[in-house]
Amino acid sequence: MGSIWKSRISLSIFGQSHGTAIGMTLDGIPAGEAIDLDKLQAFLLRRAPGRSSLSTSRLEEDVPEFISGLVNGVTCGAPITAIIRNNNIRSSDYSDMTDIPRPSHADFTAHVKHNGFQDKSGGGHFSGRLTAPLCIAGGICLQILERHGIFIGTHIYSIGDVCDCVIDTANINKESLLGLSKMELPVFDPNAAAIIKTEIENARKNLDSIGGIIECIAIGLPAGLGEPIFDGMENRIARLVFAIPAVKGVDFGAGFRAADMRGSEHNDPFYRDGEHIKTRTNHNGGILGGITSGMPLVFRTVIKPTPSIGKVQESVYLSRKDPAVLQIQGRHDPCIVPRAVPCIEAAAAIAIYDALCT
Amino acid sequence: MGSIWKSRISLSIFGQSHGTAIGMTLDGIPAGEAIDLDKLQAFLLRRAPGRSSLSTSRLEEDVPEFISGLVNGVTCGAPITAIIRNNNIRSSDYSDMTDIPRPSHADFTAHVKHNGFQDKSGGGHFSGRLTAPLCIAGGICLQILERHGIFIGTHIYSIGDVCDCVIDTANINKESLLGLSKMELPVFDPNAAAIIKTEIENARKNLDSIGGIIECIAIGLPAGLGEPIFDGMENRIARLVFAIPAVKGVDFGAGFRAADMRGSEHNDPFYRDGEHIKTRTNHNGGILGGITSGMPLVFRTVIKPTPSIGKVQESVYLSRKDPAVLQIQGRHDPCIVPRAVPCIEAAAAIAIYDALCT
Amino acid sequence: MGSIWKSRISLSIFGQSHGTAIGMTLDGIPAGEAIDLDKLQAFLLRRAPGRSSLSTSRLEEDVPEFISGLVNGVTCGAPITAIIRNNNIRSSDYSDMTDIPRPSHADFTAHVKHNGFQDKSGGGHFSGRLTAPLCIAGGICLQILERHGIFIGTHIYSIGDVCDCVIDTANINKESLLGLSKMELPVFDPNAAAIIKTEIENARKNLDSIGGIIECIAIGLPAGLGEPIFDGMENRIARLVFAIPAVKGVDFGAGFRAADMRGSEHNDPFYRDGEHIKTRTNHNGGILGGITSGMPLVFRTVIKPTPSIGKVQESVYLSRKDPAVLQIQGRHDPCIVPRAVPCIEAAAAIAIYDALCT
Amino acid sequence: MGSIWKSRISLSIFGQSHGTAIGMTLDGIPAGEAIDLDKLQAFLLRRAPGRSSLSTSRLEEDVPEFISGLVNGVTCGAPITAIIRNNNIRSSDYSDMTDIPRPSHADFTAHVKHNGFQDKSGGGHFSGRLTAPLCIAGGICLQILERHGIFIGTHIYSIGDVCDCVIDTANINKESLLGLSKMELPVFDPNAAAIIKTEIENARKNLDSIGGIIECIAIGLPAGLGEPIFDGMENRIARLVFAIPAVKGVDFGAGFRAADMRGSEHNDPFYRDGEHIKTRTNHNGGILGGITSGMPLVFRTVIKPTPSIGKVQESVYLSRKDPAVLQIQGRHDPCIVPRAVPCIEAAAAIAIYDALCT
Repeated sequence: MGSIWKSRISLSIFGQSHGTAIGMTLDGIPAGEAIDLDKLQAFLLRRAPGRSSLSTSRLEEDVPEFISGLVNGVTCGAPITAIIRNNNIRSSDYSDMTDIPRPSHADFTAHVKHNGFQDKSGGGHFSGRLTAPLCIAGGICLQILERHGIFIGTHIYSIGDVCDCVIDTANINKESLLGLSKMELPVFDPNAAAIIKTEIENARKNLDSIGGIIECIAIGLPAGLGEPIFDGMENRIARLVFAIPAVKGVDFGAGFRAADMRGSEHNDPFYRDGEHIKTRTNHNGGILGGITSGMPLVFRTVIKPTPSIGKVQESVYLSRKDPAVLQIQGRHDPCIVPRAVPCIEAAAAIAIYDALCT
Repeated sequence: MGSIWKSRISLSIFGQSHGTAIGMTLDGIPAGEAIDLDKLQAFLLRRAPGRSSLSTSRLEEDVPEFISGLVNGVTCGAPITAIIRNNNIRSSDYSDMTDIPRPSHADFTAHVKHNGFQDKSGGGHFSGRLTAPLCIAGGICLQILERHGIFIGTHIYSIGDVCDCVIDTANINKESLLGLSKMELPVFDPNAAAIIKTEIENARKNLDSIGGIIECIAIGLPAGLGEPIFDGMENRIARLVFAIPAVKGVDFGAGFRAADMRGSEHNDPFYRDGEHIKTRTNHNGGILGGITSGMPLVFRTVIKPTPSIGKVQESVYLSRKDPAVLQIQGRHDPCIVPRAVPCIEAAAAIAIYDALCT
Repeated sequence: MGSIWKSRISLSIFGQSHGTAIGMTLDGIPAGEAIDLDKLQAFLLRRAPGRSSLSTSRLEEDVPEFISGLVNGVTCGAPITAIIRNNNIRSSDYSDMTDIPRPSHADFTAHVKHNGFQDKSGGGHFSGRLTAPLCIAGGICLQILERHGIFIGTHIYSIGDVCDCVIDTANINKESLLGLSKMELPVFDPNAAAIIKTEIENARKNLDSIGGIIECIAIGLPAGLGEPIFDGMENRIARLVFAIPAVKGVDFGAGFRAADMRGSEHNDPFYRDGEHIKTRTNHNGGILGGITSGMPLVFRTVIKPTPSIGKVQESVYLSRKDPAVLQIQGRHDPCIVPRAVPCIEAAAAIAIYDALCT
Repeated sequence: MGSIWKSRISLSIFGQSHGTAIGMTLDGIPAGEAIDLDKLQAFLLRRAPGRSSLSTSRLEEDVPEFISGLVNGVTCGAPITAIIRNNNIRSSDYSDMTDIPRPSHADFTAHVKHNGFQDKSGGGHFSGRLTAPLCIAGGICLQILERHGIFIGTHIYSIGDVCDCVIDTANINKESLLGLSKMELPVFDPNAAAIIKTEIENARKNLDSIGGIIECIAIGLPAGLGEPIFDGMENRIARLVFAIPAVKGVDFGAGFRAADMRGSEHNDPFYRDGEHIKTRTNHNGGILGGITSGMPLVFRTVIKPTPSIGKVQESVYLSRKDPAVLQIQGRHDPCIVPRAVPCIEAAAAIAIYDALCT
């Protein structure tokens, strides 16, 4: 039931990691929007594995086939459906895991929920691979948002305890923000990039993994988007970013750092800049009362260290009572934070475009 | 539009801070559930102001009148509607703020969204007072959850930079968890309570305010609740906690602290405890793949420092171009974290009961 | 769960016939819409009983108290909530019916659904009285629709086997359409009115009741409203008119009369009338593919004969096995069709305004 | 937006008549349900054209490929997605219609709604071909319903003015009901079948088409399904049957025939039949107050005469002002009522199973 989301626009995500195909249906996009498929593919490539020395060597082609909703590359008002065939599957990578649930994965909870009938191969419907359809939907929304003057940029805020430099989001530089999407490691501070690479390499060498924090910034939003109580921008974005498997937290503006701030420090003073009312600081992340203020919308998500590690781990057998020992084989990312960056952008784009359609 | 939430159960929240009444409609509660109105009132009192030296001296009576859904105190299957009349309104406290938006409040964004037609008095529909109906709904759900063996306890994780002790949520003590609801400052560490009081008093003396973090823990949940992708427990809880005005972030289990953990450290090893499969640690906060694992469900929310402070602040006039200076008068909390605690419990109870109804 | 409807606008209906109050919350109405409460009251009076020799002599005052959403009679963007206290309750009219389900009423099904915990008095939440809140919501939508040039008129198509004259809905006269709302029996043919009155009186004298058909016509709609498949105008209107207890069918345009038409007869030929594309006939009732064509939107609903009749009826005891004989006492309408007319208009107005907000 | 429906279960329908593929995603089906694909294919064949002398000679293969949700033919809890490639397309059949909207089709309204960007070929997303995915979803639900002892049978109530015999739905014969699905023309009265065939043949010879009424009967439903006000069985079924393009009306039980019935005639008297409470007649079609009574659920839908007729018709050019004359070429059904029968069953099955999941 949870794989279809219905709001002003609607999104259905389907498929299992090692099934026939994965895909998505996006409904509610107005007719007449040209979709640049090359640009979309470039966006998907940012998520795909095997593109960097930092990620798994598995190659997922992730070329969507559009089977509905486009006529000559232009939306026709019908739901947009795209599928990606699952070709490059090496099931042996996952062979003996079906009876031993991997710690921190959904193997155990999927087993309980679906009474053992879940697709056990490669994480099934719970696999991170299901973020590919999310990125198709998000990539489409991003293209349309740009026509409304709304742009989204995302940087790695931290990996382990290595932080990128802190950004004054009240005065963001558009060019440097948009330049992030072209970087292998999207950070503002080049020194941070180098240290982060080392951190990730160290995790790999130790058969371990490492987490991090991603900060996403949307500029050009008009004031007034979002609805009070249950459908504010925070509610909407939060609901969508938790569709990405490894996300375990989200905060807006100063977020958790607001806990030890005083009101006099956290409050963003209003001032007039010509015709516009702006705030001097942006601790509220461009959202007040759930509604956009016109300042950059800023949120962070935390990505847990990827659970698939090479180290020996304690687990159980689902079918018998003696303790199990698990050693995961195969090609896995030591750090999925870089690949999660476009997924976060996708979720943000969908949430923002949906609010814009209200 | 955002003030009605429809899922397995549905919740409508209505009213403005200084309007005739505020209230809520909760639909989908099965017939035959006895609601203990005294117990509910005790729960609401935890949210009400004026009960502690730490909060504003405004007295809000907050006694709901049930006008639908109960027959002799038992649910009859019809929607449950309760209203609270707004009696103790001192409008003068808010008198000259209508043209000067208060920093960090929704005054400005509500003005833009509603073209100046919003109810300007006391924050209107955006007021924190609207958490009273949320607590009515949550208090009802809490009572029903207890009949299913599910209990929720909440402590103040930190105020400013003062932290309560860290809890091993994999091995939580039920009695100490449930004892929290009886404390003026719900913390596990009595020393922390004393220091926190001083912190809050200091903020008040400085005409300032202070934020904090709340940690909520639900025990007794069966494994298997929640749905993948968009309707996982994290998506659901996040969407509901952001209905509380001052919440600016939410994380689950280790949450943002997972950023600098290794996978080998963060992964929760499975083991068998008699018939049950448990995990040794609970860094995932009882949720894997969006689905409950049967371990305690744990999440934190950050509460920003309350924006209503006595200090002089910079702002603008909505109607004219010269800069404005704002000094908020009246009775305001220097720290709303303690009063937010039952609101968080309410949101959690609604989300969990909704998932249980699936 | 079914008492809250969420679409572009949302509607929550609450209360039981003999409970404290009934009411509604309407969310999603833009701020800045003036609501003429006298005009609304006049609309509600058309539904209220006791206004005509043709209906029950019970007097329901049905004066709503607005407790949320209006500031000086103008919408403020917050949800609009209005309640009607239940004052004029003569419970003795319903006294011994609680154990004997009334045929054709919801007594039995409510009992099964709610395990005997349903509010048994006066039909509880299933009572026709719950159409009063529907009319509050619809009356508000009607006022806003008129500002968009959209007007709704409704006539009694038939009572028993007495029919009003057939209308050429492709060429409807606006004045005669809008005049209907001022009639005790809204029909185009005055002769029909006289015969219908006799029919209803005869039913009353026989301690019986009689059904009928209502035809609702909306003019001024732009072409292009509605969505394909599940959210066409037919889906939307149908879903809402079945919220009215006695409705047992709905059809659009020629509707059931299309069954024995040929395509060459039923197809509505297009032609140009100046700038507008119109159709010569309107057998499709202004809807093609679920989308409005710009022609008058026309639909009929059938109202079953009111089940509360004075004649002796066969039934059962819920609590024991011997057969029951039921004779309903009290003041009941022999024909609710005239009072259902504004309810149908209300449902249509809500559905159309919702589609307009898309 | 309207092509995704979200309730207890969810359904997304996508594709255009002459696009790459059509298909559906059905979410919320529990894991562990075996789907008999041969049985499903047999069900789909009942809808497919070219199977009978009575329908168009176009051959649509309509063999779905399941790309998600099944593991070895058993549901795994992930959304079920199936697609049908569009192979047998003869675009020339539709060649010059793009500028001349076909009367009674959605060509004109789709053009207005989508600003000319709609897929014009073969009706695009508005085509009757989109009922194939509806039947996939419905066919799956039918199989699961049967495991709950719920069976659905459907007969042609009338074609033109030729009626099948009237059925006493309070005492339906299960075998004869289920035998309907094997008939080319599903009627109870063999004489009616012969006359109907002649009627359809006559329509074809006259380059015309003819409408009809379908009656659908579901047996084995428990009492208590459905929700009051907006989510009663009537609201739910109505919303779904209007997803079928040619449906212009729906009624329940006696439906429109209740208009000239007296209450004493229409009311269904309760009696006890052993442990069960039943009604002597079934004029309410198994639904009271929106809730199932346990009696057979009965509803009728009217199918308008198919708009694609060979006769010359009046229309307009969308791009220029002079009047147009249209003569539709190609292979079209003179009567789509027989092919609509399984579509109605599919819609009913989805609505009923959804209510059962509540």
